[in-house]
Amino acid sequence: MFEYTLIAGDSNTAARAGVFQTPHGTLRTPVFAPVGTQATVKTLTPRDLRETGASLVLSNTYHLYLRPGTERVRDFGGLHAWMGWEQPMLTDSGGFQVFSLAQMRKLDPDGVTFRSHIDGSLHRFTPESAILSQESLGADIIMCLDECAEPLDRKYNEEAVARTHAWAARCKAAQSRTDQALFGIVQGGIFPDLRIASARTLAKIDFPGYAIGGLSVGETKAEMYATLDVTTPELPADKPRYLMGVGAPEDILEGVARGIDIFDCVLPTRVARNGGLFTRQGRLNLRNSRYAADPLPVEPGCDCYCCQNFSKAYLRHLFKAEEILGLHLATIHNVRFMIRLMKEVRQSILAGTFPAFRQRFLAEYEVPNQAARHAQLEARKQRKQA
Amino acid sequence: MFEYTLIAGDSNTAARAGVFQTPHGTLRTPVFAPVGTQATVKTLTPRDLRETGASLVLSNTYHLYLRPGTERVRDFGGLHAWMGWEQPMLTDSGGFQVFSLAQMRKLDPDGVTFRSHIDGSLHRFTPESAILSQESLGADIIMCLDECAEPLDRKYNEEAVARTHAWAARCKAAQSRTDQALFGIVQGGIFPDLRIASARTLAKIDFPGYAIGGLSVGETKAEMYATLDVTTPELPADKPRYLMGVGAPEDILEGVARGIDIFDCVLPTRVARNGGLFTRQGRLNLRNSRYAADPLPVEPGCDCYCCQNFSKAYLRHLFKAEEILGLHLATIHNVRFMIRLMKEVRQSILAGTFPAFRQRFLAEYEVPNQAARHAQLEARKQRKQA
Repeated sequence: MFEYTLIAGDSNTAARAGVFQTPHGTLRTPVFAPVGTQATVKTLTPRDLRETGASLVLSNTYHLYLRPGTERVRDFGGLHAWMGWEQPMLTDSGGFQVFSLAQMRKLDPDGVTFRSHIDGSLHRFTPESAILSQESLGADIIMCLDECAEPLDRKYNEEAVARTHAWAARCKAAQSRTDQALFGIVQGGIFPDLRIASARTLAKIDFPGYAIGGLSVGETKAEMYATLDVTTPELPADKPRYLMGVGAPEDILEGVARGIDIFDCVLPTRVARNGGLFTRQGRLNLRNSRYAADPLPVEPGCDCYCCQNFSKAYLRHLFKAEEILGLHLATIHNVRFMIRLMKEVRQSILAGTFPAFRQRFLAEYEVPNQAARHAQLEARKQRKQA
Repeated sequence: MFEYTLIAGDSNTAARAGVFQTPHGTLRTPVFAPVGTQATVKTLTPRDLRETGASLVLSNTYHLYLRPGTERVRDFGGLHAWMGWEQPMLTDSGGFQVFSLAQMRKLDPDGVTFRSHIDGSLHRFTPESAILSQESLGADIIMCLDECAEPLDRKYNEEAVARTHAWAARCKAAQSRTDQALFGIVQGGIFPDLRIASARTLAKIDFPGYAIGGLSVGETKAEMYATLDVTTPELPADKPRYLMGVGAPEDILEGVARGIDIFDCVLPTRVARNGGLFTRQGRLNLRNSRYAADPLPVEPGCDCYCCQNFSKAYLRHLFKAEEILGLHLATIHNVRFMIRLMKEVRQSILAGTFPAFRQRFLAEYEVPNQAARHAQLEARKQRKQA
């Protein structure tokens, strides 16, 4: 169980294709996991999801802990049975959401105390309770409780890395189920020495897989890619590597090129519900009046149910009329877009043509609002330095 | 085209089973039409809808006229192509919605002028424009522009019936397409003499089908049933009869017993989105805490995708967590419930057992909030009489 087999590696980049065995099936990596925060990938049934070709679904322990409660899910046979998804699942530890609560949480060496965003009630996560919760949920891949620090704050990252390592060891010790792969999480912000040390420390603890956390949380894309450049070479080559919370199409290509095997992100499903649809040329906004009479599908040639059956004009109508069906169809397309992209990425690695595929994709795909995003990050940096 | 064939009549009631030919297929009556107001049955794809067994879908001319515009739909090949529904469709005239606008519309003998509920812009419907709009939409069954009066107001109903008849003749004269069945609409509130006169007048104009309008809009159920008792015997036996806007399960049984062939109602889909799920015992509310740990489906034995795959506990979780998937699954169940009910009703008519079926159904099915509904209607009556 949990064997990672390297099938092919690209000779010009660190890209690699593999298979990872889990109790609910084999993952063909690189793989993208749609996010089902509250035990549902928003707007999709399990059969819709299966039809997109998705093989791995992520769900969030923090949300499920609060509602319906991890014990309720356990009593129903775990997440797979609870939500009707029979293929591999992954849960995070809940730590990321708790640390995002800012004023509503208090950290100590043993764990973190926080108030529910739903009703303000008081709760506590420790490394041991995070494992217990995830054992109740029963996903195939589970995560250590870690601390995700502001990526540009050196001092905070030094403390967070130390705590993350101590908690990683405690998580491993707390694990009682043998049918779940517990991943360690590398932290260290954008600081190469911290990242390298974190990767080496966790590798020594010896996990069946490694995640890279604390990225795509405020640093520039260049900083994220540079951090991956120094981190993945330090991780064991015979274990899968998971880049947490990253999933913009351009970042997937860059992550794969740096040796990442697993991705997850709310982006495809969240932007779909805002009318943002992925195409190989970039993201289009269905609310744009230019689509009011457009008889073509979102992406001609796409094999998803949305593109096979509906015009952009009809989809735009659904969004303008605030019809739920619009959210549903847009989500189907974006998830299918990501799954098909991953399949093509993997095929290109197997065929030895990944560098050309990456170059062609990035040349064709217009990254949205790059300038605006960069200005925003620069302003943030300057505030930090001031 | 548009031939109605009577297959079997119940010997104890006016219930009847028939077939009605339309350009997009044969309707087996009695039939229930889910409502797709804005060219989508809320939360369902056409394939979901097909899976429920639905054969007829209603869409609203008023809404489509305002958004995306009936000409836009025409340019896309009509409603069937626009929304991807290949089976029979029915559109109303738009009159009912306009008359519901109250302060925002002004009536004259030639038509009605109103303001859009979306942007306040000024519009006008006449019998001729209502037909033109519906010819653009291209449904198989279309409706005359009529006036739906307050059911208990004698004087208003006398005027409204006269206008409805004049407009019915103008609608028939305005029709240019031969592939749409234009139905006349009987009005007259709860007044037997007005209803009888209305049915006879419209029968003389000679339509391929007849609708009964102005019911389920404020009168008691007893008043509605009594009105049907006097109306349907006046309608030609060789034409289908459509009871507009009625679709509570108990009303379907009573309507069928009085010779109705076609029903439509937003109730099953609307209450689904509020967590109200139909069962043969009555309506259950998924938000109720009693279902928090209930491992059973909404209706054990139900063949819908929702009941075949999910527990009440999971569905309740989706509603509590405000997940769109909950609305989708609940809608699937309620539409399937209605379609299966209609199928069983029809089979019982064919088998000669409709009276027993009706009695058994009504004995088992608890009508929700009957007392509260009745008190409300009584209060309304007294205000009218005061």
